[in-house]
Amino acid sequence: MATAEMERIVLVRHIDGAPSPDDFRVERLPIPELAEGQFLARNHYVSCDPGTRSRLSPGASYAPPLAPGAPVDGFCVGEVIASRNERFAVGERLAMSGWASHVVSNGRGYCVKLPDLGVPESLFIGVLGIPGMTSWFGLKRVAALQAGERVLVTSAAGPVGATAGQLARLWGASEVIGIAGGADKCAWVKDVAGFTACLDYKAPDFEAQFAALAAPGFDVMFDNVGNAMIDRALPHMKLRGRIVVSGQVADYNTPVDQVPGLKHTREFIAKRLRMEGLVVFDDLPGFAAAQAELAALIRAGQLVYREEVFEGLASLPEAFCGLFTGASFGRRVVRV
Amino acid sequence: MATAEMERIVLVRHIDGAPSPDDFRVERLPIPELAEGQFLARNHYVSCDPGTRSRLSPGASYAPPLAPGAPVDGFCVGEVIASRNERFAVGERLAMSGWASHVVSNGRGYCVKLPDLGVPESLFIGVLGIPGMTSWFGLKRVAALQAGERVLVTSAAGPVGATAGQLARLWGASEVIGIAGGADKCAWVKDVAGFTACLDYKAPDFEAQFAALAAPGFDVMFDNVGNAMIDRALPHMKLRGRIVVSGQVADYNTPVDQVPGLKHTREFIAKRLRMEGLVVFDDLPGFAAAQAELAALIRAGQLVYREEVFEGLASLPEAFCGLFTGASFGRRVVRV
Repeated sequence: MATAEMERIVLVRHIDGAPSPDDFRVERLPIPELAEGQFLARNHYVSCDPGTRSRLSPGASYAPPLAPGAPVDGFCVGEVIASRNERFAVGERLAMSGWASHVVSNGRGYCVKLPDLGVPESLFIGVLGIPGMTSWFGLKRVAALQAGERVLVTSAAGPVGATAGQLARLWGASEVIGIAGGADKCAWVKDVAGFTACLDYKAPDFEAQFAALAAPGFDVMFDNVGNAMIDRALPHMKLRGRIVVSGQVADYNTPVDQVPGLKHTREFIAKRLRMEGLVVFDDLPGFAAAQAELAALIRAGQLVYREEVFEGLASLPEAFCGLFTGASFGRRVVRV
Repeated sequence: MATAEMERIVLVRHIDGAPSPDDFRVERLPIPELAEGQFLARNHYVSCDPGTRSRLSPGASYAPPLAPGAPVDGFCVGEVIASRNERFAVGERLAMSGWASHVVSNGRGYCVKLPDLGVPESLFIGVLGIPGMTSWFGLKRVAALQAGERVLVTSAAGPVGATAGQLARLWGASEVIGIAGGADKCAWVKDVAGFTACLDYKAPDFEAQFAALAAPGFDVMFDNVGNAMIDRALPHMKLRGRIVVSGQVADYNTPVDQVPGLKHTREFIAKRLRMEGLVVFDDLPGFAAAQAELAALIRAGQLVYREEVFEGLASLPEAFCGLFTGASFGRRVVRV
């Protein structure tokens, strides 16, 4: 029998600025023999996450940078097809990590069995995966959202923002204002995801629109974009407002000294503001319960999501790079 | 009987940039007749607080700006010398608000009876006043300091910083690093206030000294200076570090668009940092208990403080302006 092969995406070079598809290549390699305690999973979907960017250049982040030539990590869902580990039987479906067609693992690291929640499998790297968990715990634990509060969500058409805004509404926010790029995204955020309003940051009169909608103030800002958006919102935060630093997609590609600086920091004292960052893996023990509640909301039609499905692992670099150009609209996943 | 007179400091003009003594003038006026429910207090000490600066220019802060010609607020301690309010008897000592020789009050607003804690009266506008309370609640409530943590304190020779650093040590911090301006202040902070070390930000090799002492990281930054200091410290914060925004003396005189921007904000996600501002009046219900504990520490010689006493209300503008030039060293108070 010929040795089976797998594909994975490797980093060609450390990235300076915006990532480009040719910063990555597809590598083919034989699937290694399983050692005792290992299993082999065949991936069904692999995800595109802005947070992956932080590991593609040197510099400290919450995970060490990858070396050129190293396989790239990203979230995936798949199914065990061979196993020498009694905890992971053939047929078990898992959420794991790896931009690859297959994963060989001993079950350590991020490796979570998928419960049957009556929703599509791809959601476990979307609304029920890291993006949805970030929305859930960012709003519940970090912002500690209270009923009646007014919420601002940036990147509102993205998987984190769209879920955060809908959860804010379901959890009793008085109003949820979104910001997204382009009329199509804004229409979806307002009409489909049910935000109170959504502002197009590309519109010529965006600043005036923002000033009008910001006037009543915000109790919570759930930010996925970065410093420029936070600095714009700071003067409009209400007393004891909370800013959730969930993502910084506009700043990931920029050297630190060129990132727009937060200047309206005197608001922190005046309004007793709190700004806090999160990495949702800290909340791993709570994932299962949150996923069950989210799945119930989805099945009941109370929570919507939008997916863009790309075909084949080779399409992953291009799909990923589109996260930073505003091209993506909803959750980008690749069917392997 | 001739009508008695009082003196107070009024604002001459809205201030642009650093305050100057001629932005203020001393106004003499007859002491008004007391209405039913009012009392008259003779001030003994009036304080210089950087936070007063925020009300001397237009722009939102935690208190509305003063109009030119308005009397300036600042903390004071004095004694009731006439009263038509049964809650405030002649002889009662009070902490109040007003840059003036006398205060006529009905007891509303900031007006707190001074307990007899066996310490000098001037401390109630110092270590036992707003500066000390800011240190106490900033460290206890906002930073939630834990034993074994490593702490950075800026403006470490000032009344807030010096108290915060000493409390951190008393509450079990593993190390307390101060930053102050000039060799004299640094020597006092280290040798008298007992910080682990104190760096002189005016020293030519300050950045190298800071890098060396910052290398092990900080769990808590207690900042009294502003954005430039916070941005310098951000890359050195440890996982789940807390930044207490206690004061921004380096930024108060600068228009927002010229304030140094915080750029190292990606640390917020990577390290799950939390940055929070405080206005210590929120903690008013806890003042009495904190003051009693602080006074006990002072009487026991476990907590030290440094006062610069100016003579006469007319010296107040100059004393105040020195807060922003680095001239002040410890708590500046004016004996009226």
